[in-house]
Amino acid sequence: MASPITGQLARAGFAYAGYNHASTVFTALAAPILEVEQGERFILEARSLLTGGFFEAGEYEKCSIPVTGPVVVHGARPGDALRVDLHDIRVADRGAMVTLPGRGGFGEPLGRFGHVVEIDDGGVHFADGVAIPVRPMVGKLGVAPADGEPSSSTVGPYGGNMDCNDVTAGSAVILPVQADGARLFAGDLHAAQGDGECSLTGVEVEGSVTLSCRVLPGVAVRRPVVLSAGRVITIGDGDDLDAAALAALDDMLELVVVDRSWSREKAAMLLSAAADVAVSQLVNARASVKVSLAEEYFLHSPFSPA
Amino acid sequence: MASPITGQLARAGFAYAGYNHASTVFTALAAPILEVEQGERFILEARSLLTGGFFEAGEYEKCSIPVTGPVVVHGARPGDALRVDLHDIRVADRGAMVTLPGRGGFGEPLGRFGHVVEIDDGGVHFADGVAIPVRPMVGKLGVAPADGEPSSSTVGPYGGNMDCNDVTAGSAVILPVQADGARLFAGDLHAAQGDGECSLTGVEVEGSVTLSCRVLPGVAVRRPVVLSAGRVITIGDGDDLDAAALAALDDMLELVVVDRSWSREKAAMLLSAAADVAVSQLVNARASVKVSLAEEYFLHSPFSPA
Repeated sequence: MASPITGQLARAGFAYAGYNHASTVFTALAAPILEVEQGERFILEARSLLTGGFFEAGEYEKCSIPVTGPVVVHGARPGDALRVDLHDIRVADRGAMVTLPGRGGFGEPLGRFGHVVEIDDGGVHFADGVAIPVRPMVGKLGVAPADGEPSSSTVGPYGGNMDCNDVTAGSAVILPVQADGARLFAGDLHAAQGDGECSLTGVEVEGSVTLSCRVLPGVAVRRPVVLSAGRVITIGDGDDLDAAALAALDDMLELVVVDRSWSREKAAMLLSAAADVAVSQLVNARASVKVSLAEEYFLHSPFSPA
Repeated sequence: MASPITGQLARAGFAYAGYNHASTVFTALAAPILEVEQGERFILEARSLLTGGFFEAGEYEKCSIPVTGPVVVHGARPGDALRVDLHDIRVADRGAMVTLPGRGGFGEPLGRFGHVVEIDDGGVHFADGVAIPVRPMVGKLGVAPADGEPSSSTVGPYGGNMDCNDVTAGSAVILPVQADGARLFAGDLHAAQGDGECSLTGVEVEGSVTLSCRVLPGVAVRRPVVLSAGRVITIGDGDDLDAAALAALDDMLELVVVDRSWSREKAAMLLSAAADVAVSQLVNARASVKVSLAEEYFLHSPFSPA
């Protein structure tokens, strides 16, 4: 089946869900759009700012960036962790960015502005002579939360709008399962995004992502953990950056204490010397901060599939 | 002259100030320990946790990490910027870290703990089989503020305890001159430190740093800017991470707007797609956040010496 928005072909035999299966919330209540076995690869197509015509009509406020799902993973139960492996991300050859009054991470308010960019092997063509390297990532990825139906634009222990630019092809995301079947959602692809996503959006693109899932039975995680490019990355969320940083630091500290059987103080010192605290996003109602540490500091690679 | 704490020789002909010229504050009132011409290389030696015997006696609370200075730079006047180039950082072969009750970036308080590490070409030997790559940096660097005598452990527009791990040999720091002669102070060397310095200290080491200064006449900067490894890095300080991030983002936005003559919205979008927001330190009374953007995005390399 050819994707109506990127023109690419779904690979033969892969389960596939098109962009019409979009949700504006993470929820346990929606009917599944796919059911998959563990290890089975499947493809989710994702909408973006340019989908549906609102952006090009100048109606930026009507644009939404939903997630595609839910995907039920057979065998996933509350109390397990879900390991989501990202095998491939395909993005369209045009993307868009937007600023809106009252939003963004700057002292003086920004105005209302939209910008369309062409994307090819030479980069994201931001302006004459200004190309940004293409580094496709998934902004929103999460499971159904135990309670409530949070907007796809916010972030929490279930994942959500983490906007972590380490969630690239070849990475894995570990999420705490909170409902039977996990009920995975993904979307909000970016062709490029800096840490912080400071003006409100990344380079927002339509596209598709190829995923597979494994259940890690009885593995307790409080919040998402990303494994990417040889680094272990904890993701904290909070009402402000301080609260989000504290959550991500506590999660990383626990991983090291459990792995090394060190005191909290000794583990904290290792983090102080070798781990990096960065901002994933600071422009939404809840902030997202990440703490990353090279995998080589762990005795046992965390969250390996069985 | 041989350094009493690292054993290294000062290079012939370089002005040199030993670790006895330590100050616990950034101040315009202290007598200069050196006076230098623009472009003249000079060496400052720095104390650390292991200086003076308090650490090894277990009296961690009595340890201080002062700065060495002030150095008067001929020709520097309020309204100018000072470009400080770091040519070399030499560190001792032993370092230390400490945690103290009530300090650190974690939810549960840490206890009182000290840890001494050996340092050689193989890294910082943190524990059996755990070596952290050596990456010497200067934690505290600043000029005398216009008013007051802030502790060397805090951070502000004059620089201070930025704990920015991009301040390495080969980097440059741009500071707003606030008193005649600039009156530079530097110290707090780290053999390694992650972004955030989350447990309270980096790998604190005695050592020395070779510097030179140039005055950038009439160049207005509000806060420190670091040029390191092909990136331009603004440093914001604030009562919390959100305030510090906002300051650093505003500074970077202004650099791009001025350089490109773009609207604030367009410049903000470039930052959102290509700049990274990270935490320099979150463990002191004022937090320090950095925003970095590759130099190639600027038409004119900012803060080049004349």
